[in-house]
Amino acid sequence: MTQSSGVPADIPAVINVGLMGLGVVGTGVAATLLRKNSPVSDVTGRSVRLKKVLVRDLSRPRDIDLPPGLLTADAEDILADPDIHIVVEVMGGTDPAESYLKQALSAGKHVVTANKEVMAKSGPELLALARENRANLLFEASVGGGIPIVGCLMNELAANDIRSIRSIINGTTNYILTRMAHHRTSFQQALREAQDLGYAEADPTNDIEGIDAAYKLTILASLAYRCAFQHEDVYCEGISKLEPQDFRYAQELGYAIKSLAIANLVDGAVQLRVYPAFVPAEHMLAKVDGVYNAVEVDGSLCGQVLFHGMGAGREPTTSAVVGDLIEVVRNMGRHAAPSRVQAGEGPQNGPALAVRPIGDLQARYYIRLDVADHPGVLAQIAKVFGDGQISIAAVLQRDTHPETESAEIVITTHPAKEESVQHALQAMAGLPQVRKVSNMIRIEE
Amino acid sequence: MTQSSGVPADIPAVINVGLMGLGVVGTGVAATLLRKNSPVSDVTGRSVRLKKVLVRDLSRPRDIDLPPGLLTADAEDILADPDIHIVVEVMGGTDPAESYLKQALSAGKHVVTANKEVMAKSGPELLALARENRANLLFEASVGGGIPIVGCLMNELAANDIRSIRSIINGTTNYILTRMAHHRTSFQQALREAQDLGYAEADPTNDIEGIDAAYKLTILASLAYRCAFQHEDVYCEGISKLEPQDFRYAQELGYAIKSLAIANLVDGAVQLRVYPAFVPAEHMLAKVDGVYNAVEVDGSLCGQVLFHGMGAGREPTTSAVVGDLIEVVRNMGRHAAPSRVQAGEGPQNGPALAVRPIGDLQARYYIRLDVADHPGVLAQIAKVFGDGQISIAAVLQRDTHPETESAEIVITTHPAKEESVQHALQAMAGLPQVRKVSNMIRIEE
Repeated sequence: MTQSSGVPADIPAVINVGLMGLGVVGTGVAATLLRKNSPVSDVTGRSVRLKKVLVRDLSRPRDIDLPPGLLTADAEDILADPDIHIVVEVMGGTDPAESYLKQALSAGKHVVTANKEVMAKSGPELLALARENRANLLFEASVGGGIPIVGCLMNELAANDIRSIRSIINGTTNYILTRMAHHRTSFQQALREAQDLGYAEADPTNDIEGIDAAYKLTILASLAYRCAFQHEDVYCEGISKLEPQDFRYAQELGYAIKSLAIANLVDGAVQLRVYPAFVPAEHMLAKVDGVYNAVEVDGSLCGQVLFHGMGAGREPTTSAVVGDLIEVVRNMGRHAAPSRVQAGEGPQNGPALAVRPIGDLQARYYIRLDVADHPGVLAQIAKVFGDGQISIAAVLQRDTHPETESAEIVITTHPAKEESVQHALQAMAGLPQVRKVSNMIRIEE
Repeated sequence: MTQSSGVPADIPAVINVGLMGLGVVGTGVAATLLRKNSPVSDVTGRSVRLKKVLVRDLSRPRDIDLPPGLLTADAEDILADPDIHIVVEVMGGTDPAESYLKQALSAGKHVVTANKEVMAKSGPELLALARENRANLLFEASVGGGIPIVGCLMNELAANDIRSIRSIINGTTNYILTRMAHHRTSFQQALREAQDLGYAEADPTNDIEGIDAAYKLTILASLAYRCAFQHEDVYCEGISKLEPQDFRYAQELGYAIKSLAIANLVDGAVQLRVYPAFVPAEHMLAKVDGVYNAVEVDGSLCGQVLFHGMGAGREPTTSAVVGDLIEVVRNMGRHAAPSRVQAGEGPQNGPALAVRPIGDLQARYYIRLDVADHPGVLAQIAKVFGDGQISIAAVLQRDTHPETESAEIVITTHPAKEESVQHALQAMAGLPQVRKVSNMIRIEE
């Protein structure tokens, strides 16, 4: 066990792991630890043993054969056992996971967690607790499944000032958007398909409204800028407002529509947002299809590095959890010194950075309007843009419907300030000939 | 300094770095270390100082203003200075770099190197020397420039059994192939353009014949399979044999042509090769253009993870070197315990694996033949394939030239054994109607 005195302690002959949660990911982790040649023991040369597994319901049938005596419904069997050196938490949700993590860290246990919600909401507090107790707290699995983005931001890419992170970190929305793009299905139809395939939950709010991605972005931004952000700092727009014609126009204009989670530094402040965006068709992010995830890091030295892989699922998430476990065991071999992220190098030790409101965003915009098919409409719309100092890049007018005397106008702008664009959209909505501002989507070059 | 007794030693108040080499990468590393807020000091919280820089010619003008007294032409000023704790080697080449690295490690100095040739040829020996002397030896910059593939194979992806690595790790060849594909230029023309732009050297042999990629693949495979491979284990085929019509047929058949460096495990033995290959156009590797590099790791848990970024150049390589420097400094903060790759976890501690000869390869093949335009030719060719138990997937016949009575036949096969295909090609070359086996390119699905 670690000691709070900081004196190197002996490494136990057998390192015991307590697993909290035996759902999809927990089953993968348990199966890996119970393998004859578990990679943790194999790679580190230490004997690492799964000692207890916490479940809610002991009687529920499981996908995995566990040796007798492993299961417990009492968290204290893990948290109060001084022989359990590492707690792996894959329960999800904040309650009771967060209090378990605090209890484990306070007892000097190392913690590996896949819990994005807890890390986004209470990461800085938990990391401080880990530091105090000279314990490791690792969380690779909280973002991007099998993509090693958390570790790379902490370690391999640490030499870089991060200019931006642009990412597709929610597989559910990316699956839906891919279906809508390639099969011209409606949002509702694509969502139903995703639910049928198990890619979306019965209540899909967290995914489709960008909340899940906002949690993950909070974690990535905190690592990239070494500064504690709150998930409420992330401006969030979901994908349910997208319609088939947006995909048609996007394709015509040379773009794909992707839900991006973006953090970037502008004049010393950070802008954090999750929204569906136009991405140039030739950009690698535009080519990320289906349930895949991708993270593009733009660093001062490395330039743009893109990571692409499975962002969820039993095996990819197990890869991340077990990778962290290996790191913890290696760190124990280094005389239980706290791991890199706790050694005063993690979130909160950079300078505090302000978060810019969405109104400050400078972007190009795609705007789709439903207008009365009368002469002079376009001139009126153009005037509103001109009054707002917003420069128009392209105009498409299509889908004139003589029976309703309506037409669809699509406008893309040159870079403009979001605040000005929002004002212009309000002004436009007030024009008698504009029946509806059907959509506004930001363009990320 | 580290001590060979293994007793944790005090960390020096100032950590001194000796830099060997001040070319493109050395200049980037020096500039980063001399920055007011050097990321190494900034991220680690330690005072890290550039103490000496080894150059060949003191009088040569430099792209960088160095404080007086930093330059030396005498390697002993670094190697024999007990106050230099970390040696960064960015000279390249084996002589004298390798002997310098040995001397530095033997003196217990930590080493960061960008030297792919030395690591491919003598990596296991140097790593053993580092272990003996409880020193770190890190080499992220030896493969993939700013792409963090070395660290990820050692750490973040360590939970995986690696099924395969497929990579584009030579920017020069990828630039040439991209030009040939998109502009239908000849190999010679594309090479000249690459030379004019500084992407290819005056003697381009190492790049275009796959030798550079073979060095890098040796390093990646040794990490992935924790087994010491030699660069001679890599079967190597260059790109100079490619002709414009190969790119035309590739496109027609739905493929891109990329020079791939591949390591994979087949029935407990490893197959290592560098060659131009057909890659399905929709695969991410087919979309890696210009001087970009990419590495796709297929792991037992993570599935396919792709890394994409700048594989060379001053800044990306500096990102890798300085990232390693940060890791070394962090490791020194861990009481100078040896870093992960030296702790008995690096190359050579896995089981020894055999290397399969290229004749064992199972692949699909693209074969282009120059034949006499006579009746019955295709039947004769088909018979040779049939005799070799090689199943034909598709046949294209084009470019009949009445004046020379010749025609071009392109055949793709179903999966076959390379040995059988080579025999068939020999037999075909002996047919009176076959004027030339113009090309044979493997298809990687």
